[in-house]
Amino acid sequence: MRFSNLLFNSLKESPKEAKIVSHQLMLRSSMIQQHTSGIYTWLPLGFKVLKNIEEIVRSNQDQIGCNEMLMSTIQSSDLWTKSGRYADYGKEMLRIKDRHDNELLYGPTNEEVITDLFSNYVNSYKGLPKYVYHIQWKFRDEIRPRFGVMRGREFLMKDAYSFDLDHDKAVKTYQTFFMCYLKTFKELGLQPIPVKAATGAIGGDLSHEFQILAKTGESELAYDPELVSQDLLEKSFDEITSMYSASDEMIDKSKSNVVIGRGIEVGHIFNFGTKYSEPLECYVLNNEGKKVTPYMGSYGIGVSRLTAAIIEAFHDDKGIKWPFNISPFKINIISSNDKFIDIAGELYDTLSKKYINISFDDRDLSLGRKIKDSELIGIPWSLIIGKNFDEKNEFEVINRSSGEKFFVNKQELENFQFEQYTP
Amino acid sequence: MRFSNLLFNSLKESPKEAKIVSHQLMLRSSMIQQHTSGIYTWLPLGFKVLKNIEEIVRSNQDQIGCNEMLMSTIQSSDLWTKSGRYADYGKEMLRIKDRHDNELLYGPTNEEVITDLFSNYVNSYKGLPKYVYHIQWKFRDEIRPRFGVMRGREFLMKDAYSFDLDHDKAVKTYQTFFMCYLKTFKELGLQPIPVKAATGAIGGDLSHEFQILAKTGESELAYDPELVSQDLLEKSFDEITSMYSASDEMIDKSKSNVVIGRGIEVGHIFNFGTKYSEPLECYVLNNEGKKVTPYMGSYGIGVSRLTAAIIEAFHDDKGIKWPFNISPFKINIISSNDKFIDIAGELYDTLSKKYINISFDDRDLSLGRKIKDSELIGIPWSLIIGKNFDEKNEFEVINRSSGEKFFVNKQELENFQFEQYTP
Repeated sequence: MRFSNLLFNSLKESPKEAKIVSHQLMLRSSMIQQHTSGIYTWLPLGFKVLKNIEEIVRSNQDQIGCNEMLMSTIQSSDLWTKSGRYADYGKEMLRIKDRHDNELLYGPTNEEVITDLFSNYVNSYKGLPKYVYHIQWKFRDEIRPRFGVMRGREFLMKDAYSFDLDHDKAVKTYQTFFMCYLKTFKELGLQPIPVKAATGAIGGDLSHEFQILAKTGESELAYDPELVSQDLLEKSFDEITSMYSASDEMIDKSKSNVVIGRGIEVGHIFNFGTKYSEPLECYVLNNEGKKVTPYMGSYGIGVSRLTAAIIEAFHDDKGIKWPFNISPFKINIISSNDKFIDIAGELYDTLSKKYINISFDDRDLSLGRKIKDSELIGIPWSLIIGKNFDEKNEFEVINRSSGEKFFVNKQELENFQFEQYTP
Repeated sequence: MRFSNLLFNSLKESPKEAKIVSHQLMLRSSMIQQHTSGIYTWLPLGFKVLKNIEEIVRSNQDQIGCNEMLMSTIQSSDLWTKSGRYADYGKEMLRIKDRHDNELLYGPTNEEVITDLFSNYVNSYKGLPKYVYHIQWKFRDEIRPRFGVMRGREFLMKDAYSFDLDHDKAVKTYQTFFMCYLKTFKELGLQPIPVKAATGAIGGDLSHEFQILAKTGESELAYDPELVSQDLLEKSFDEITSMYSASDEMIDKSKSNVVIGRGIEVGHIFNFGTKYSEPLECYVLNNEGKKVTPYMGSYGIGVSRLTAAIIEAFHDDKGIKWPFNISPFKINIISSNDKFIDIAGELYDTLSKKYINISFDDRDLSLGRKIKDSELIGIPWSLIIGKNFDEKNEFEVINRSSGEKFFVNKQELENFQFEQYTP
C-alpha cells in the first residue's frame, strides 16, 4: 500500500492518557483510536496486525480439528437465567432491552449458547468428541477500562468449546488444547508460561492461564526458571505441568528457586465437566442407548489484547518491532527525494508481486521523517532509494530490530532473505 | 473436513417458521440456527459461505484503493446527537446504557464515526481522496425480523466511506464504487440491476440500489430489459445509468418496454456531499490554506444477506447450488460403504493438498443419504467411490447443477477440471 492512500498520521508525543508503552505506541503509530471509554477503532495498520494474529490463532485451531463458526454478539438472557449466571455476572455484563422489552445482552463469553446449540445438532456418542470455536467481539463493562486494548470493554476473543463422552476423554482434549496453545503463542513470537489457575466464574476442576512476561503485567507471577529456558513443545503435558508456576494469591511464598515476575494473561483454558451441560439439559445417547451428559471445556485467547502484549514484548525507544509474520507491512520502500519516486514506484510494483504486504512511503516528507515513521510502526525492513542509488546503483536495506544496514544491487536485492528476521 | 468432525445435522423437513426457500434451505442444511428473533448463529457450513462472500467483497474494495479498518459495534451517542440522527433513527436503533449510565448504541451504520475519525487523521487536501471500509456486524432493531438472515436484526455489512475535495471529484469516486459493485456482484455469480434510489435516512443527491431479481424479492422493480441482457462492465457509468430502472413508488406506470419483476436489495450507494462533514465540523485545508469541508459518500453491501440472496438465485428442489467460489466445500468425497473408507481417506488427503476445501463424508450412513446431504448443502461436485470402483477402478463424479455423471480413472481424476462449474 502507498502511504498516500493510507489513513495514517504519526504522533511525536504520547497522548497523556496512555500509561503503558503498548498503548502509547499504538496511538502514536495510528494503529488504534479510542472511540469512547474502553472502545477502540482499529485503523488500517492496527487492523492488519489484528488480522495477522487472528490468522495464526485460526490455523492452529483448525489443525486440531476445531470447527470454526460464529455466534452472534447479542444474546438472549434466557439461557443465562437457566445456567444461573445471569445474576452472577453483575455489572460487567452489558444488559440491553430491545423495542419489545426483551432482555438481551452483549455476550461476554459463550458457554450457554454453545451448549444449547450443540444439543440441537449432536445426539449420539458417535458425534463425539466435537470441538468448535469462533473469533468474535465480546463486551465486558469494566468499571475502569485502561491500558488501551489491553483492558478494553469491546474486545476480540477466540473462544473454543469441547464436548466429550466422559471425564478422561475431556482431560485428553484439555491437554490437546494446552499443547496447541503453546504452539500458537510460539508462532506469535511469544514465550508463554502456563500457570495453574483458579477457575473463577467459568467453573470446573482444571484450569491454566497462559502468561507473557512483561514489566507492565497486571498480575504477579512465580515460576520455575526451567519453564522459560527451553522449548516446551518438546515436552509432554505432564512434564510441563509438573514444573512450578503460580500467580497472584496462589503464589507459595516459602518456595525457593523460583523467579518472580509480572505477567500479561493472553490465554485461559478450563475443563469444567458438566457444569453447563447439566442445567441446560444437554444429552447424548451412549453406546447402550442411555442418556449421558457430555463433559465440556472452554479455551480462550485474547486476540485484540495480544496486539498490545506483543508490543510490550517487542519494542524499543524508537517504536514497535513486530515479528515478521505479524507486521502490517514486511518491507517499507522509501525514496529519499522526488528524483527516485518513479524507480521506487516500479520497485514497489515488482516486490508487491512477490510479497503480499509491501508499503511505499510516497509522501512529500523528508527522508528522516519517513525513516522515523517506519521505525515507529515497526516494519521489519526499510528499503531506501537515495544517495547510494545515485552514486552506485545500490539500495540501502535497514533491519528495524538490529539496525544493521546492507547495501545491495538489484540482483542481490532479489535474493535478499527478508523472511530471516528476528524482532 | 471430515463430516464426522463437522457440526452438521441435515433436516428432511423445512421448519414451519421459514417462509422463503433460502431460509428453509439454510436451516435444513445446518448453515444457520436462530438464536433469538432476528439473531442467528452461523454454523460451520454457513460460516464458510459467509467468509467466501466476504473475501470477494474485500478483494474488490482493496482493488480500488480502499483501506480496510474496523470500527467498533458499540458506539457512543455523542456524535449521533451532533449529526441530528440520534432522534431520527427511532426504535430501529438499539439503545444501551452502560454501568455509568452513559448512552451507547449498537451501530446501525457508521457515517458519524468515520467522519469524526477522518478529521483526526487528515487535515490537508494532499490527503484526499481517501477511501476506507470495514466489514462489521450491525444491529437494526426491526419491528418484525423475518426471512432468516435476509432481514435479521444483527447482520454483517461492508460499508465504505469516501472523502473528496469537491463535488465533481466525489461524483467520480461514486462512479468508481458503482463500477466496483457491478464487478463484485458478477464475481459472486449474480446479475445486479442498478436502480436509481431515494436517499432516505442517509441523505444526499445521488443514490443507487443494486437489486438481484428473485420471486421472493421485497420490492417491485421495473427495468429496461437491456440491463440484464449484457455485461454491464463493458459499458460506462453514463451508458448504464441512462437505461431505465426504478423500484417501488418510483416506478413510472406509463413507461412501455419495461420488465416488471421483484428484487432483493444487496447493495446501496450514496453521494451525500457535506451532510455529515458540516455538522461534525470536519475540515481540510485546500491548496490556498483555506478550510474546506470534504464531500463524502457511503457504499454498503449486505454480506450476510447475500448468502440468502445467492440461494434464492441458485437452488432447485434438492437443495442449494452454490457457485464454485462460494461453496463451503468444492468436492465432497463419498464412499458407498466401509470397504472403501481407507481409499476414500487417502483420496481426501491427496485432493486436500490441491484444493483448499474438500470434504469427506465418512459418516456411518447409506450412500443415498450422503448423496442427498451433498445435494442439499449444494457442493458443486460429489466424488463417489463405490460399485464402479470395485468393478473397474473408476470414480463416479457428479455435477450438482446439471446432474451429469462422469466415470473417471485415477489419471483422469487428477486432470479433471473441477473449477469449470456453472451453478
